[in-house]
This record gives sequence, C-alpha cells and structure tokens, in this order.
Amino acid sequence: MKFDFHEAIEILERTPGTLETLLSGLSPDWVACNEGEGTWNASEVIDHLIEGEKTNWIPRLEFLLLEGESKPFPPFDRFSHLNDAEEKSIEYKLHEFGIIRKESLAKLRSIFESGLDLEKTGTHPAFGQVKARELISTWVVHDLTHISQIVRVMAERYRADVGPWVEYLGVLKK
Amino acid sequence: MKFDFHEAIEILERTPGTLETLLSGLSPDWVACNEGEGTWNASEVIDHLIEGEKTNWIPRLEFLLLEGESKPFPPFDRFSHLNDAEEKSIEYKLHEFGIIRKESLAKLRSIFESGLDLEKTGTHPAFGQVKARELISTWVVHDLTHISQIVRVMAERYRADVGPWVEYLGVLKK
Repeated sequence: MKFDFHEAIEILERTPGTLETLLSGLSPDWVACNEGEGTWNASEVIDHLIEGEKTNWIPRLEFLLLEGESKPFPPFDRFSHLNDAEEKSIEYKLHEFGIIRKESLAKLRSIFESGLDLEKTGTHPAFGQVKARELISTWVVHDLTHISQIVRVMAERYRADVGPWVEYLGVLKK
Repeated sequence: MKFDFHEAIEILERTPGTLETLLSGLSPDWVACNEGEGTWNASEVIDHLIEGEKTNWIPRLEFLLLEGESKPFPPFDRFSHLNDAEEKSIEYKLHEFGIIRKESLAKLRSIFESGLDLEKTGTHPAFGQVKARELISTWVVHDLTHISQIVRVMAERYRADVGPWVEYLGVLKK
C-alpha cells in the first residue's frame, strides 16, 4: 500500500490550480476540441469534476461511514453534467471547481481529525465491498485520469500538424 | 491543419506554470516514483524538458531556417539529461524550466516577427523533409506528452490502492 492520507490531500488540493493554469485564458478552440462524437472537451471534463464534488466523493465517504456495508452507495451518474444546458465560461467553471474542492477538502480533513477509520468498509453498487482508503485513493487517481484526458484531447487537435513526429509522441499513441 | 502560431504559443507558455502548480512542494515519494526500471520519474521529465529548450526546439528551428533541407538537424540525445549527476530539487528545476522556456518563447516570437516562413522545410535525420510549422506543433504536443506522462506515473503509484475502481480509471489502462 502506497496510500497516505496527507500525500493524497497534496494531489487533491493541487488539481484545481493545475487545471486553471493549463486552461484559463486559452483560445476557444483549445477548450472546445474533443476526440470525436460522444467524447468530452476540456470544459465538459471540468463540469464532471464539479459534479463529482457535489454527488460523489464526500457524499459517498459520509455514506460509507454512516451505513457501513448495510446499503450500497446511491449510484453516481457519470454523465449528469451533460444535461446542464447553461453555458458558462471555462474560467467560471474552474473558479467554481476551486471553491467546491476547497469545501470538500475542509470536510475531508474534519472527518480525518474526528478519527476516520481508513479500513472501514462500505458497499459499492457494482463492486461490492470497498474501503474508505480505496475511495480516497480513487478520488486522487480520478483527478489524475481527467488531467490526463484533457491533455490527450488537446494533443489530438494537432495529430495531423506534427507530421512525421507523430511516431515519437506517446500521447498520440492509439 | 489546426496549427495557429499564437494558439501554439498559448500552450507553450502555460506548461512551466502547470507543472509547477502540479509538482512544487509535493512529498518526495510523488516526485521520485516511476513506472519501473528504465522509466522516468517527474523530476527526470523536467530535466528532459530543460534539455529540449537548450538543444532541441529553438536550435532546430534556427538550423532549419539557416540550412533549409541541405543538412539534417544534428541529432538530439533524448537521454542526455540522465547523465547529469548533480541532484537539484524539483522546485529548482521547475524554476529553471520556467526561465529557459521564457527565453525560448522570446526567441520564437522574435523569429516570427521577422517574417517566419512556416512552410519552410528542413531535413530531420530520421524522417527526412519536415516543415517549420510541424516542428512548432511537435513542440506543443511534446509538452502535452510529458504532462500526460507525469500524471500517468503518479497515478501508477496508487494502482493497488484504488482497489476494484481500477476498472473505471482510464489513466491506469495498460
């Protein structure tokens, strides 16, 4: 096991700033590009991260701590953010993500300081038994997955433009 | 063609800040972890990016503009940074990368303003004919490749820790 609570927090608290530095102020084509029909652009990924703060990570941790294995987590709709018709700028969304992540981390720290049992188990609707520390580890890797996705989507935009160098560029490997 | 000179610069100028926000102040284990023998950790990737500023991007562009297709670019040793025995902190390296990237972009803008012919061709030692705009596009995607690599390497550290969620986390797909 590599998981360490404080090291996990280090990643979670850096994600909003990392994405803000990468994306804020970019030309619209960088923000709007995707990998084809049914795939997400950078702006939609930020929507998904915001949705996760609202309905996934802390709510599931609190549910696990309250219910143990007795009831499965309420399912999390990974596509619900796509139903939000309101169009906000990416800068607005990044700011919102930064605020809501800070709130989540304040709750997480407070749960930890009240004596969080990292081995405590709950029931995932698809996987069955999962541990509190696995949920927090997943939150960390979920951040990294979506940073990686945004970077890959943006690289894809220049697939034809790099000419023969495509061969050397790992992010464009299919 | 999606390439646009000013949009390419937008990515190039954001990379040092993005990596600084992601990596600066992290616990040593996040910075030192890699994907196994012969693979790079985050700190070694920053060394490689610094080396590219010194010997790859602007030097190759200048060479292409000077020599055209008459002589191939001098080869670029993608592993030379691994020979540097001196151990510097990642914060020091990130700062160095930020400074040297600013210098590169000042040169790139100055070349552009002097009337850069983006269609001008040179000879790559392995690929043969390449264009100035392909070189600059590759520089952009090379940044994105290495951001993606760092994020993937860090995610790998928690592969076992995420438990059954490994199935949902794209960055851990082999």
